[in-house]
Amino acid sequence: MVNREESVLPRPPSAGPGGEPRAGKVFLVGAGPGDVGLLTLKGAACLRLADTVLCDGLVNPELLRKFCPQAEVIDVSHRKGSCRWTQEQIVDLTVEKARAGRFVVRLKGGDPCLFGRGGEEARALRRAGIAFEIVPGVSSVTAVPAYAGIPVTDRDFSSSLGIYSLHRKNGFTLPDDEWKRIARGGPDTLVFLMCGSACTQVVGKLLEFGLAPATPIAIVSEGTTDRQKRVVATLDTIRSRREMVELALPALMVVGNVVRAIEEMDWFQPAACAESEGGGLSCRR
Amino acid sequence: MVNREESVLPRPPSAGPGGEPRAGKVFLVGAGPGDVGLLTLKGAACLRLADTVLCDGLVNPELLRKFCPQAEVIDVSHRKGSCRWTQEQIVDLTVEKARAGRFVVRLKGGDPCLFGRGGEEARALRRAGIAFEIVPGVSSVTAVPAYAGIPVTDRDFSSSLGIYSLHRKNGFTLPDDEWKRIARGGPDTLVFLMCGSACTQVVGKLLEFGLAPATPIAIVSEGTTDRQKRVVATLDTIRSRREMVELALPALMVVGNVVRAIEEMDWFQPAACAESEGGGLSCRR
Repeated sequence: MVNREESVLPRPPSAGPGGEPRAGKVFLVGAGPGDVGLLTLKGAACLRLADTVLCDGLVNPELLRKFCPQAEVIDVSHRKGSCRWTQEQIVDLTVEKARAGRFVVRLKGGDPCLFGRGGEEARALRRAGIAFEIVPGVSSVTAVPAYAGIPVTDRDFSSSLGIYSLHRKNGFTLPDDEWKRIARGGPDTLVFLMCGSACTQVVGKLLEFGLAPATPIAIVSEGTTDRQKRVVATLDTIRSRREMVELALPALMVVGNVVRAIEEMDWFQPAACAESEGGGLSCRR
Repeated sequence: MVNREESVLPRPPSAGPGGEPRAGKVFLVGAGPGDVGLLTLKGAACLRLADTVLCDGLVNPELLRKFCPQAEVIDVSHRKGSCRWTQEQIVDLTVEKARAGRFVVRLKGGDPCLFGRGGEEARALRRAGIAFEIVPGVSSVTAVPAYAGIPVTDRDFSSSLGIYSLHRKNGFTLPDDEWKRIARGGPDTLVFLMCGSACTQVVGKLLEFGLAPATPIAIVSEGTTDRQKRVVATLDTIRSRREMVELALPALMVVGNVVRAIEEMDWFQPAACAESEGGGLSCRR
């Protein structure tokens, strides 16, 4: 069988011309939103060649079992509450492994450069003299709504998309002037990432600064996997919805008229997925 | 060799229990931004199983040669000027092929639901009673800037991202009140898709409605491929840059302080790619 992925394989680090130890290299790889099938060919090729994988908490562990059983895997997740690894420690470890000549994959949920800190890590690698490549991934921003039946833009509903993270370098909330900007001047569709316990706060701020109470909203947790759950309502009714307590965290929030598209686009049935092999794969109708 | 992709394969349409003709199905697949390696595993699996592929003009033809030599491929691109296919004709043909029991892939550049009209087509399929799935792709919005050395968000420069298309249902330009919203209330990083000859117009509108003349801007054409070109400047200087005329169209525009990250993140060298096999693959330093 011809391996049709051959030409997308990254080249492993090679020994120097005089036989000196090979120089390590780091691949900043986006793991996609959860569904194993949404990993890229290049991402899969990197994992297969990896000596060491430094892995975030949001990555589907099935990816590691399937594509890099040979690799040393280090979980460097810094979830709220545990905070075992600082960003500086992660960079130091990445540099250390690369200097030891290893093929290092830094695996991040979604896309590494969309709220993934890929930029920060890439610049730190450059300063340390380590070669790197970026392997973009399918972002949760588009894929999670798509699996929930929502196209993030759609000429019938929305002509622009704004994406906001609630994790900021100096804390977890946004200043009021930014809420004002979002509610009054923001794009047609708003997506908020990493909404955990802050979901109700976000809704409150959007209403406070003038978004219409009847604006449709969907909150989706564990999107694209067989555990996907979603709550669909309007800004003024969502906080009273009982299903809110069943959502796993972190969740993604979509606000805007595109949410109405769900009625005709509800194609993914996560419940049926429980029966299929390899959690997180899409089901057939 | 074990095929590690086995579990991500979509199931082909199957015959009915009474032996009646199998029902067709449509997969709305994102082809990614150009680099063949940025296709998803599920996207590749769909192409390998496809009977018919309806393909947009922005899709890298290498994908078709590599993954679906067996399929009937129909180019339904409606580029400016040619307009051979209307959206309605594309939907009609997709429905016709699916009704004939075929495994149909509707292949779109980037992601099908981010300015890809995937939503419109999915709803039309639902109305016609045709089963469909959405296979999200890596969007040009994140990947093209990443290959150009720009993380679209980065805690050191930007905490939000706005994405705008210049193609609207009723024409090609935005109304002035929308430009005002973008320039005064928009997110930190702005990405404009499908900027063709309108690049200078966009810059003019952003300046007219109050964005600082010193705001960094990058315009990238044919991003992630070996033909990638980019021009980096500020809003008040970009229009006088001679390299602007060398950019192929359509191009993608990034506006905001994240563009400054290029200095330390310039990793992709498209010129060197000309020597490597399978155009559009990433090069090593």
